[in-house]
Parts: sequence; C-alpha cells; structure tokens
Amino acid sequence: MTAASDLIQPNGQGSAKICLGCWDQMHVPIPIRGPLALPFRAFGITRSKMNPNICTICERSFRYVKKKRHVTVSATILFADIRGFTRLSERIDPVKLSELVSMFQDLCAQAIWAHDGIVNKQMGDGLMAIFNFPIKIGDHAGAAIMAARDIQRRCTAALDRLNADLDSSHGPALGVGVGVHTGDVEIGEFSTFRSDFTAIGGAVNLAARLESKAAAGEILVSDATAAQAPDRMTGAEPRLLALKGIAQPVQARVLIKS
Amino acid sequence: MTAASDLIQPNGQGSAKICLGCWDQMHVPIPIRGPLALPFRAFGITRSKMNPNICTICERSFRYVKKKRHVTVSATILFADIRGFTRLSERIDPVKLSELVSMFQDLCAQAIWAHDGIVNKQMGDGLMAIFNFPIKIGDHAGAAIMAARDIQRRCTAALDRLNADLDSSHGPALGVGVGVHTGDVEIGEFSTFRSDFTAIGGAVNLAARLESKAAAGEILVSDATAAQAPDRMTGAEPRLLALKGIAQPVQARVLIKS
Repeated sequence: MTAASDLIQPNGQGSAKICLGCWDQMHVPIPIRGPLALPFRAFGITRSKMNPNICTICERSFRYVKKKRHVTVSATILFADIRGFTRLSERIDPVKLSELVSMFQDLCAQAIWAHDGIVNKQMGDGLMAIFNFPIKIGDHAGAAIMAARDIQRRCTAALDRLNADLDSSHGPALGVGVGVHTGDVEIGEFSTFRSDFTAIGGAVNLAARLESKAAAGEILVSDATAAQAPDRMTGAEPRLLALKGIAQPVQARVLIKS
Repeated sequence: MTAASDLIQPNGQGSAKICLGCWDQMHVPIPIRGPLALPFRAFGITRSKMNPNICTICERSFRYVKKKRHVTVSATILFADIRGFTRLSERIDPVKLSELVSMFQDLCAQAIWAHDGIVNKQMGDGLMAIFNFPIKIGDHAGAAIMAARDIQRRCTAALDRLNADLDSSHGPALGVGVGVHTGDVEIGEFSTFRSDFTAIGGAVNLAARLESKAAAGEILVSDATAAQAPDRMTGAEPRLLALKGIAQPVQARVLIKS
C-alpha cells in the first residue's frame, strides 16, 4: 500500500484527501477534498464517478496518466447482476423497476468502494468492477472476494423485502449473482472517440461467464482468484462449469451467502 | 424531424452546428461547432462521446433536460458484439486484441451515428445503442435496422481480412451478431452517483437476448421492430427463439448480411 492510503478512513462515500489513482500510478498528489481541491474543481477536475477516492484525470485521461494507449495489468475483475430481472422487467411498472436498479447499483458501488475497487461499467441490472487499477491493492483477489460477499450481504436484505412484496406470479425470487476472476487484463482506451478507460481480454470474459452461471445468492470464484486468497474462501465448494466460448470445462469455487 | 436537422449533412463524425438532443428535447439551441461554440466550450460544454451531434448537457444532465429522474420513451434498442471473441481472447496477443476492439467500436459508432442513434454503452467487444433519444427520429425502427445493416457491412470487410490472417486453430471465424427491438423503455439516471443517462426495462433486455442468439453475420430483429419498418426487412426469414429469462418463445426475423 502507498502513503496515500494513510489519508483514507474507508467508508462508502470515500474520504481520501488526494486522488489515490493518480498517486498510485504517477506519484502525483491531486487534491480531491478540502480547500486545496477548489482550484482543481474550477478546471473541471473532480471526483470520479467510478470511485470517490479517484479523480477525473485518472478516469478520462488514461493516455496522460500512463503515456500509452493501454497497459497489461494483473487485476481482479468482478461482475454482478440481478437474477430474475428480465422476467420481472416484463411484469412490474417502470418506476418500481428504476428504483430496484438504482438501489442495486448504489449498494454494489458502496461494497466495491469499501474495498478500493472501481465501478468501471454499469449496464442496466449489471455492473463490472476492477480491483488493482488505478488504485493499487496488494491483495486484489482478496479485496474482490470481500466486496462480492459485501454485495450479497447488502443486497439480500433489500431484495428479501422486495420479494416479500411480490407474489410468485412475478417469477422466481430476485437475488444477485456474482463472478470473480483474476488474471492479466489489458487496461486502456479502446475506441478513438471515448476517453474513459476500461479492461478487456480473456480474463474479463471469463469473469463475465462465471457471473452468468451464478445462481441467486451465489459468488462463483475462479481457481486463479481462490489460489491467491485462500483465507477468504472458507466454506467454498468446487464446481465444474461448461462456459460459452471457452473450450475446456472451467473449475470454479462457489461461495453461498450465509 | 425538427428544423435542427436542416443543419446536418450526415457523416460519421457529425456536423450539426447545434446540439440536436437539446434542440429536440428542450428547443434550446446549444452551439457545438463554429465560433459560437467557443464560449460554451470554456464552460465545459462540448460534443458528447455518445454522438458527435449532441452535447455534454444532454449526456450528463438528464435531470436538467427532462426535469425528472427518468421518462418512458418509445425507442429502438440495438445490441452488437463480436462472435468468437472470447475464444480468440485466450489465443492472440493483447495488442492485436485491443486493435480489434477499437476497430469494431469505431466502425459500429460510425454506422450508428450515420442514422442518428447514440452509443450509450460500450462493454469490451459489445455495445448498446439507443434510437429516438435524445435525437428524435420519426422512423426509429427503420433507422436502427439500417444502422445494423451498416454495422454488418462495415465490419465484414475488416473482419474477413483478420480471419484470413488467423489460422483455424484460433477457433471459429470472427463475425458480428446484432439484436434489435422496439418498445417502451425507461430512460434516465439509475444510480445516485452516475450522471450519464441510460435505458432500462423489458425491451432493453429483449434486445440483448436477441443479440446473444444472433450468429456471426446475423441481425435478429423482433416482430415489434419489423412491423414498424416492413420496407427495411427485405429478405428476412422468421425464427422462433427460446430466450433466457423470457417465459414464452419469441418470434423474430433474421437478416443475413448480403
């Protein structure tokens, strides 16, 4: 961990005085809170929507930060989405649906931020998070697993209340499925017209495929992630999975919400 | 169509003098090109990354534009992604993979912009486009089908070159799958911490499910879209699909690249 981490008292909304991403990637202190942040704000440099402890420089100026269009980084990727959402979306009114999506996105973001991950993509009832960029995390596999457990814990209470309100004609009970995988990913800008960074590569796709196989309440963790954070895998059970687009069956471990 | 459309000569990079989104949604002329755009740029109002004919006000200030957190809009949703990408991503080097993703995203964006759609989400080798918000389009179903055909046309030449370079050990030949569906969607901001708008709802999920069933070179168009643009459906064949999370089989029409 870096010296900058001394400046945070972890909580859902972030409290770092300087951008942890710019510090970890460039050792440049960019003020994001307090009076020193004011002149930066006047130039449009504010806290990022991906994580309140990073700034819009690391969010939107990847090439400036890394001096390259993309870099290879060892990272842990987390995907989460709401199981039963498609069926529900045909049956409840749009205002309720919007509230459900907002609640899910907010609860997940707080869980991810609490472990220094960033919410890189939100897609309706789903999201993708990156652990170890731009905030460096020594144990990024462990951080992602803790965030996944946190997502399940925070969402269960909220969704159980909603499930109690919906009768069974709305389809199966709502829950959250999570997939986590660790590997080398390519991080950078992958189109000439967008400037916010993202991650691509086989490891990203494997994390997405794991998530698509996770039932409500389950976290599917790849063997690669589990091997890096064995102490976070208490109670996990092995499962062999056939994943779309991946030739060999994949061995993964299942954590079920307690 | 609105008076503002007189100001565009359609091309991939956009050429409207004022933001077509702010004009169509609020009848407010926001200069985005030419000398009148300079003072706006000084205040951070620039062309949006979602479409070069709209501005960052309609991209990021949905609540200011619509005076609500979300609105119900009849729209056509298009999803596209690269078939064979997951398998390929395990086998080629990250630089080549990045070039492929950038090329795909750029070609798709040009096709979507040429028909007044917006690139709302990019997710690795996939994207989601919205037709009829914030730029209003009388025949949004037809515009989306034309964009889908354009995507197939533009990507085919590029991917065929790449396929010729890759031997068959890299897996099946690369191609693009597209899904298109028209219906009422909820457009707005769906988390308290992000300010760019998106679309959610059953119609969005159906478009995504259709895309997931499209083979390389195919465009799967829902019956709802086809019924609104019958003259764009020449050569289409019916197909009955079982889609994940949707109780009844869905009747769709398949357009195959010519």
